[in-house]
Amino acid sequence: MALLTDFGLADPYVGQMKGVLASAPEAQVVDLTHGVPAFDLSRAGFFLEASRPHFPRGAIFICVVDPGVGGERRLVCLEKFDQYFIAPDNGLLTWTLAAPGEAEARVIQPERIGVTRSSETFHGRDIFAPAAVRLVHGAMPEDLGPAVDPDSLARLPGALPRLLEVPEPGLVATVLHVDRFGNVILNIALSSWPGLVANWPGGVLLAGLAQMPVRPVHSYEELGDDELGLIAGSQGFVELCMNRDSAAEFLYLSAGDEVTFKPVGSPA
Amino acid sequence: MALLTDFGLADPYVGQMKGVLASAPEAQVVDLTHGVPAFDLSRAGFFLEASRPHFPRGAIFICVVDPGVGGERRLVCLEKFDQYFIAPDNGLLTWTLAAPGEAEARVIQPERIGVTRSSETFHGRDIFAPAAVRLVHGAMPEDLGPAVDPDSLARLPGALPRLLEVPEPGLVATVLHVDRFGNVILNIALSSWPGLVANWPGGVLLAGLAQMPVRPVHSYEELGDDELGLIAGSQGFVELCMNRDSAAEFLYLSAGDEVTFKPVGSPA
Amino acid sequence: MALLTDFGLADPYVGQMKGVLASAPEAQVVDLTHGVPAFDLSRAGFFLEASRPHFPRGAIFICVVDPGVGGERRLVCLEKFDQYFIAPDNGLLTWTLAAPGEAEARVIQPERIGVTRSSETFHGRDIFAPAAVRLVHGAMPEDLGPAVDPDSLARLPGALPRLLEVPEPGLVATVLHVDRFGNVILNIALSSWPGLVANWPGGVLLAGLAQMPVRPVHSYEELGDDELGLIAGSQGFVELCMNRDSAAEFLYLSAGDEVTFKPVGSPA
Repeated sequence: MALLTDFGLADPYVGQMKGVLASAPEAQVVDLTHGVPAFDLSRAGFFLEASRPHFPRGAIFICVVDPGVGGERRLVCLEKFDQYFIAPDNGLLTWTLAAPGEAEARVIQPERIGVTRSSETFHGRDIFAPAAVRLVHGAMPEDLGPAVDPDSLARLPGALPRLLEVPEPGLVATVLHVDRFGNVILNIALSSWPGLVANWPGGVLLAGLAQMPVRPVHSYEELGDDELGLIAGSQGFVELCMNRDSAAEFLYLSAGDEVTFKPVGSPA
Repeated sequence: MALLTDFGLADPYVGQMKGVLASAPEAQVVDLTHGVPAFDLSRAGFFLEASRPHFPRGAIFICVVDPGVGGERRLVCLEKFDQYFIAPDNGLLTWTLAAPGEAEARVIQPERIGVTRSSETFHGRDIFAPAAVRLVHGAMPEDLGPAVDPDSLARLPGALPRLLEVPEPGLVATVLHVDRFGNVILNIALSSWPGLVANWPGGVLLAGLAQMPVRPVHSYEELGDDELGLIAGSQGFVELCMNRDSAAEFLYLSAGDEVTFKPVGSPA
Repeated sequence: MALLTDFGLADPYVGQMKGVLASAPEAQVVDLTHGVPAFDLSRAGFFLEASRPHFPRGAIFICVVDPGVGGERRLVCLEKFDQYFIAPDNGLLTWTLAAPGEAEARVIQPERIGVTRSSETFHGRDIFAPAAVRLVHGAMPEDLGPAVDPDSLARLPGALPRLLEVPEPGLVATVLHVDRFGNVILNIALSSWPGLVANWPGGVLLAGLAQMPVRPVHSYEELGDDELGLIAGSQGFVELCMNRDSAAEFLYLSAGDEVTFKPVGSPA
């Protein structure tokens, strides 16, 4: 089981979820991260989709970024890639739903998993975790509740970069995340990048105030001081980077910001 | 085993304790939290009491908030609720001792658990953790050291809210903790709250500078912008809250502060 | 397995490594710490050497502070103290190499451990972790790659304190780390300290602007307010400390700073 929350580690909330999960001691519990900024569904969805390919089949992801807890939002269990994703139906699963693959989904009904009492503010501990324990103990997804069409699950807007064609070519990307090292992770999937670079034989320019050339590199060490690189990052997306320095601080970028790339030689 | 410390995660101290506990690989080790502010016994005690009901029988809690390490303070093992609590005798166990239930306690003697060498500053690693390993390996609490009357263990002052009767009714509560979301957790047990609300049919007013009505709610989403709610929190205590906003920042409250509630219509 | 990185816990990087390690569920995974400051090899090396004696035989340490990832630096597996240390060859192992004991080392070749695809920026997840999984699954270190002379591995400069003899005796130490409690951990091994104190029967003075006497103590509680102590710390090194206060803040010290000790009565 892998836990992904916006709880941080200063409160005892993650520990209490693990207390509940301890009733299934045969399952390993792994912290994906609890550092999602409070209520940040987009960040949580990116973290989940960047991470799930590195977990084994059968893994159960418990995702708790849940500002609507206690309200009308549904709890769902998505089955995809031979893995299980337990989450509120609030857009957190956007990226994982968009990835190619067969999917099934269930709406979790607390009474179906034996939950008769729950707090009104902490379903992660009182409903999500018991549902995961049920799966570990042999329950099938259909035991959690009725099937629901995966297409009916909530999605976040603006998940893809925009191509500019007129008056000149370009690409507008959104910053998904800035990591601890100042790498700027963009919403440009690695699979889509080679086509773009091939079309711009003169090189890539970061437009806007910066107007800086950016160099496609294979390692940070290829970059000189104050030189900006584009690298095929480890998270499945293109990243802006520097050598032992923060590209994010250098460019004043943070999550949610947009950056525009243009071919070298094009008008600014 | 559940670990509760004020060590934070930037130092290798928690990792070293886990290295010692790795000699009992059959035991699961769970982090309750290591985010207790340094030396904050009250916070640690609240975290422990809010969390222990969510852990299975037989759980061993290792609690290390220990400013008196190396001095005269005793190390104890409390047995209660079919769980074990290993902690310094400095008040950390106040809340867990106050909860109704049969209790037994032992003073841990290092020589009884085979500890012949210990650092003078890190008993959590050198004495607490080996004591827990002993319990996992089948030792009985009486093997750790002599019995001691649980009533003799240290308690922190001021754990309960104060009722005001004259000149008009009211309730003075203390802030136990502000969580990551800005929820203000008060020292008013959920069990005592209904009686209070029932006595104040006109509603509840937060007295003092704020003079704000507070609305009892069942979910955050019932609250409008800038509206303040009272909710039966997930930690066993009443909480002040807002909808996707920080009640603590709104009211300038932090742990240890007092708040006064009065019935609507009473003089300020 | 014990993980030591400079990844922090806000990114999903540690979680992704654990996802890979989940393919060896028979191995316990322990976080040593992920709070090494970004790229700080000296800090990581100190954390490792202070912690490894508290882990069992057979422990595998996966150490990822790796600014040169994707470049020319080697990946190595050091075998020492019946434990395994997987790390980049960039100086991180300085302290562990310096400790007395027989050592063998291997250069890890990704193709030898079945790694045919790796990101260019996250070898911790894509090469180190799979190498550790191989060891758990029964591979021998020689299966990871060819032997290399441990003496050829990179070392960091300035790991030892300097003795001053002329014109008067003294000792210049470097701050290895300041912990959460403000303890100042110096690069003076506990084993070398008694000789020094014995030679300075009048007491120890902290030279420089402070010109303060420092008192060797056995517990924090022996110290009065604003009194500075020297204590045989729990990390294998001498520490400057105060009683429930931060020696580091009191003295404006942080990691990498130098402090000079002189015998009481010597000229400043």
